[in-house]
Amino acid sequence: MTIPGPISPPPRLLMGPGPIGAYPSVLEAMSAPLVGQYDPFMTATMTETQELYRGVWATTNDATLLIDGTSRAGIEAAIVSLVRPGDRVLVPIFGRFGHLLAEIAERALAEVHTIEVPWGQVFPVSAIEEAIVRVQPTLLALVQGDTSTTMNQPLDEIGALCERHGVLFYSDATASLGGNAFEADAWGLDAATAGLQKCLGGPSGSSPITLSPRAVEVVQARKKIEAGIREPGDPSARDFVRSNYFDLGMILDYWGPRRLNHHTEATSMLYAARECARVLLLEGRDAVIERHRIAGTAMLAGVQGLGLTVFGDIAHKMNNVVAVEIPEGVPGDIARAALLEEDGIEIGTSFGPLHGRVWRIGTMGYNAREDAVMTTLAALEALLRRFGAAVPVGGGVEAARDVYRSA
Amino acid sequence: MTIPGPISPPPRLLMGPGPIGAYPSVLEAMSAPLVGQYDPFMTATMTETQELYRGVWATTNDATLLIDGTSRAGIEAAIVSLVRPGDRVLVPIFGRFGHLLAEIAERALAEVHTIEVPWGQVFPVSAIEEAIVRVQPTLLALVQGDTSTTMNQPLDEIGALCERHGVLFYSDATASLGGNAFEADAWGLDAATAGLQKCLGGPSGSSPITLSPRAVEVVQARKKIEAGIREPGDPSARDFVRSNYFDLGMILDYWGPRRLNHHTEATSMLYAARECARVLLLEGRDAVIERHRIAGTAMLAGVQGLGLTVFGDIAHKMNNVVAVEIPEGVPGDIARAALLEEDGIEIGTSFGPLHGRVWRIGTMGYNAREDAVMTTLAALEALLRRFGAAVPVGGGVEAARDVYRSA
Repeated sequence: MTIPGPISPPPRLLMGPGPIGAYPSVLEAMSAPLVGQYDPFMTATMTETQELYRGVWATTNDATLLIDGTSRAGIEAAIVSLVRPGDRVLVPIFGRFGHLLAEIAERALAEVHTIEVPWGQVFPVSAIEEAIVRVQPTLLALVQGDTSTTMNQPLDEIGALCERHGVLFYSDATASLGGNAFEADAWGLDAATAGLQKCLGGPSGSSPITLSPRAVEVVQARKKIEAGIREPGDPSARDFVRSNYFDLGMILDYWGPRRLNHHTEATSMLYAARECARVLLLEGRDAVIERHRIAGTAMLAGVQGLGLTVFGDIAHKMNNVVAVEIPEGVPGDIARAALLEEDGIEIGTSFGPLHGRVWRIGTMGYNAREDAVMTTLAALEALLRRFGAAVPVGGGVEAARDVYRSA
Repeated sequence: MTIPGPISPPPRLLMGPGPIGAYPSVLEAMSAPLVGQYDPFMTATMTETQELYRGVWATTNDATLLIDGTSRAGIEAAIVSLVRPGDRVLVPIFGRFGHLLAEIAERALAEVHTIEVPWGQVFPVSAIEEAIVRVQPTLLALVQGDTSTTMNQPLDEIGALCERHGVLFYSDATASLGGNAFEADAWGLDAATAGLQKCLGGPSGSSPITLSPRAVEVVQARKKIEAGIREPGDPSARDFVRSNYFDLGMILDYWGPRRLNHHTEATSMLYAARECARVLLLEGRDAVIERHRIAGTAMLAGVQGLGLTVFGDIAHKMNNVVAVEIPEGVPGDIARAALLEEDGIEIGTSFGPLHGRVWRIGTMGYNAREDAVMTTLAALEALLRRFGAAVPVGGGVEAARDVYRSA
C-alpha cells in the first residue's frame, strides 16, 4: 500500500448531538509526554483527576474514577458490576439510549423490565414509582439526557424514591453532564457514568464514573482478584462479575491505595479527561451549565426564528441539543452533507422513528459559544433557502442575538 | 479544591516492560482536531487505519480494526466473542498474562484447561499438541510475548496444528507486536490482539485486533443488533455474546460498510493508532523488528557486561525486554526509585514469583534506540555501584556499543 501522510483533519464546526469539537487545551493535553504506570506523577495525576471529577459530579464519593473506553464502556461497567444474573432491573425508556441500557442489562442476564413513553417526552416521577412498586427491581437504570430525543429526564426526586424502596439508582449522564444540572449526592445517585465527547468538550474514549458507598459495597462483595496477581487471603467471590475488564472491584483496587495492577491506564486519555474537568471547574460548574443554557436557548430561538418546528416537549429539553423537523421538500441527508462539505458545519441526523424526519443541532462543550450559534444559524438559513424552503431573512440570527443580548 | 494547572509531566526515559514513551509524531497526532463520527474523513480514516494494521499484522484479513480500550479490552473482545459458555478453552500458561487469558475465559464461563511451564520457559509444540488432543478445545488462547517472564512463545507451527485439530487459534501479541516477528496469515492465526503501549510506540488505550474469515463466521453466527437501532429482518441470535461493548459482530458492523452505530469511535486514539502503524510501515516492518533485535541484543550484552545474571531461557527471549536478577544486597525497589527520581529513567519491577527478585528492562518502540540503551546502561552502572554492588567499570556500555558497532 501507499503509506499516507500524517493525520490532517479538515476544519469542522461540530454542532451535532456529539461528538463535538474539543477544547483546544484538551487537544494540547493529549500531546503531553507519557510516564510509567506507577510513576509517582502518574498515580498523583489519577488521584488528582478523581478529585476533579468529584467536582464535576457534585459528589464526595471516594469511588470516582475513569473507565478506559467510550461512554458505553462506563455503562457496561456499572451494569455488569451492580447486577447479578437473574436480578430484576427496571429501565424506563424514552429514547434510543434507554434501549441500550436494557440491552446491556439483558446481556448481563438480568431480568429486565421496561416502561416507555413516546419519543419526545419524559417520565413523571409517579410512573417510575408505580413501576418500582410493581417490579421491585434491584436496580433502576435511567438515562438522564437522551440525545436521540433531546429530552432531559428530571432526576432530582428519583434518588429518594429509590432509597425508600431499597433500589440502587444508576443514571447514564453521557449526553447531559456538564451542560445540565447533575447532583450525584443531592439527588441520591448510587452510580452514574458519562463520556467526554459531549458537554465535557473532549474526545470519546474515557468514561467518568462515580459510585456511592452503597454501590461500592455491592461491587466489593463480588470481588475476584485474577490468578496472575492473587495473594493468599485475597477474596475470590463465587458470584463474580462476568467481565474482567469491567469488574469495578478490580478497577477500584487499581485506582485505590492498593494500586493493584489491572489494565494499563490510558495515559493520554487520562490527561484529556483531567483537562476536561479542569477547564469546567476553572470556569465554574454553574457557569458552564449557564453557558450551555444560554447557548441552547439562543439556538432554540434561532431555529424557531427560521420558522422550523421543534420536536418534543421543549420544557424538558436538554440545554445542549435541539431537534427540528426537516421542512417539507428539503432532502435531509443531502442538505446536511452540503452543510458539512461547503460550510464545514456538522449537524446531526436521527435514529429510529425520527430518522429522516428531524435534524439534531447541538451546542455543547467548547461549542456552546455565541459565535458558533450564530455561524450555524446563518449557514442553516442559507442552506434552507438553497433547498427551496421559505425562511425569514435573518430570522435565526436575530432571534438568537436577542437571547444573548438579554442574557 | 484548588484547581491545578495544565498537565506537565516530568521528563522520563521509559525503559521498563511498558508502557514506554511514544513516538513524538504519535503524541502530535493526538492533538489533531476532532471530526464527527460519520464525517467522510472519519470513516475514511478508519478504513485507512484498517489497511495500515493489515500491514502491521501481516494479514489480508478484512476484519482488522481497533477495540476502544486498553490491550486487555482487545483480549476480552476476542475471547467473549469467540467462546460460548461451556466451550472448552485451552490456555498454555508461561507467565502472568497466560493467567489473564484463563481468567477472562473463566469469566466468559468457558471450561478452561491450562498447562504450565515454569516461568522463564516456553512450550515445545509437542506439549501444546498433546494438550489439544487431550482437551479437544474450541479455542487455543496463547500469549506470544509475556513481559512477566520476557519469553517469546514460538507460534509459527501452532496455526497448522490448530487447523489439523479443528481448533480456533487466538494469540495475545500485546507485548510483542512490532518488536518481534508476527505473521498472522502465514502462521494461521484466527484472532490476535495487541496494544499500542509496547513496541508500537503509542499510549495505552486502543487495541488493534485481527480476525480470520473463520473467526468472523463464529462471531457473525452470534450477532445480535441492539433494540434501539434494530430493523425488521436483522438477526438477533439466542446465543448472543454476553457483552455489548465487546460484541465483535456489532463492532464489525460499525467498522464495515454498513457503518451501523455502536460506540462512538475514540477519535484521538484512532489518530494515535493510525500514526503508530504509519511510522512502523514507513520505517518498514522488518526494519523495525531488526531495530528491536539489535537494541535488545545490545541491552542483553550490556547487562551481562555489568555482571548481572539474566533470568530465563535467553534463546526464547523477546527482543524488547530483558529480566535481570537484582544483585545480592541491592534493595530493588529503592534503587529503582532512585533511578527514576535522579536520572529520570524508569525500569520495571516484577510480578508474582519474580517480585523482588528481578528487574525488567525494556527497549521498545521509540525507545529501541542506541542512545536510550547507552544512557540506561551508564545510569545502571552508577546506580549499582552506589548501592554497593561490584560492577566492571564501563562494562555495560562497552558491551552494548560492540553490538551496535558490529550490527
